[in-house]
Amino acid sequence: MFSKNTAKFIKSLHQKKYRIESGMFFVEGEKSVIEVLDSDFTIESIFGTNTFLAHYDPLIQTKGVVAEEVSQKQLESIGHYQSNNSALAVVKMKGNEPFEVSDKELILALDEVRDPGNLGTIIRIADWYGIRKLVFSPHTADFYNPKVIQSSMGSFTRVSFFYSDLSQVLEQWKLPIYGAFLGGESVHELEVIQPGVLVMGNESNGISPQIEKLVNRKLTIPSFGDAESLNVAIATAVLCDNFKRLMN
Amino acid sequence: MFSKNTAKFIKSLHQKKYRIESGMFFVEGEKSVIEVLDSDFTIESIFGTNTFLAHYDPLIQTKGVVAEEVSQKQLESIGHYQSNNSALAVVKMKGNEPFEVSDKELILALDEVRDPGNLGTIIRIADWYGIRKLVFSPHTADFYNPKVIQSSMGSFTRVSFFYSDLSQVLEQWKLPIYGAFLGGESVHELEVIQPGVLVMGNESNGISPQIEKLVNRKLTIPSFGDAESLNVAIATAVLCDNFKRLMN
Repeated sequence: MFSKNTAKFIKSLHQKKYRIESGMFFVEGEKSVIEVLDSDFTIESIFGTNTFLAHYDPLIQTKGVVAEEVSQKQLESIGHYQSNNSALAVVKMKGNEPFEVSDKELILALDEVRDPGNLGTIIRIADWYGIRKLVFSPHTADFYNPKVIQSSMGSFTRVSFFYSDLSQVLEQWKLPIYGAFLGGESVHELEVIQPGVLVMGNESNGISPQIEKLVNRKLTIPSFGDAESLNVAIATAVLCDNFKRLMN
Repeated sequence: MFSKNTAKFIKSLHQKKYRIESGMFFVEGEKSVIEVLDSDFTIESIFGTNTFLAHYDPLIQTKGVVAEEVSQKQLESIGHYQSNNSALAVVKMKGNEPFEVSDKELILALDEVRDPGNLGTIIRIADWYGIRKLVFSPHTADFYNPKVIQSSMGSFTRVSFFYSDLSQVLEQWKLPIYGAFLGGESVHELEVIQPGVLVMGNESNGISPQIEKLVNRKLTIPSFGDAESLNVAIATAVLCDNFKRLMN
């Protein structure tokens, strides 16, 4: 029996302060719930429709997760999706642990990327290009925001990340630091590139002056028309594509 | 004096059937209104705040456009933006006229791209890469949808487009036809590419079977990780970037 208190608790997880207070977030939809079941995240409980639970019962049993049956209407009233006829999982947030780095891989650093849709899309792009490590400045959108989880399309389960003072981290790593700027070197002109950290900046203001000082090479996506800029997720994809082409 | 009827008329333009009935659409925000004033679109009227009208009076006079003063609150009640302290323009839709093509340029064809945000973003990407001609299948999102106009960031003023049966148009043009597919040739492996038409497909189903038959070369963005796919606007940007790198 799905209680009012449970519903109230899940609804509270739409807000960052309650996610921090409880250490929990939620994941919605069949594909994402299955991906989080298959990941190294710890699931607190699953709320699923009769059809969903019947279909995935063996997997849910294997993982030893508590599952409760709910109606589609209940799912839609507690979650962020307008339409959800499958499931919602309440999941434990991971600790904010820095990862080890090497000079053999491309790492993404986001300097104040504020829009949750952009962050989720960037996580999906990172996963496409095999980039497994992302570091975020403190005011970058919250990884556990429902819109981030939704727009990452399950890719949030396959990346490591932490929030930190970017300048400290970048100085500590001693890796090549690349930054996306208007008016830098064209990525179409490069013949080789060393792996390192690619910094992407804020939607309106780009990379902050403090981080700009640490950037070794300013990279630009060449323009052939008249648009003033590209969206940050679009620019991330194009730069990652050029990096991967040159690195391989 | 801003009348109730005018407000009602502008609000009706949120819906496609009333845009078609009146032949009008609207454009919001300082940057986009200025760009549309500077374009070959015909403006029916501008509704601006005191500050906006004072600042742009010379330009508005030069263009011979009727302008009316409104409050920020009125702008926000008639438009699509949550916050608009500048202006809204009511603009005439263009006719659905096919453009001439040559074998020297890259053209984009969208096969059922349904999401207005994706269409607007693709128009902005086209403008960045100097692609001036786009053709849309009949069920692609409406170019004049407020979300398309908003997400194109003014780039809607700098492209030519028409809606048509894609297979007829593609057969008529006799140009090389490229399509974005999972499992085609990697765009990182290409050394040269002839200009032609790049077809991008629907968000869920990709390129339709009917159009697939007409595609001469299936292109793929190589994946280095585990995401199943990329968003269609992201894929459009990466493919245009590779085309432009190889064409130049």
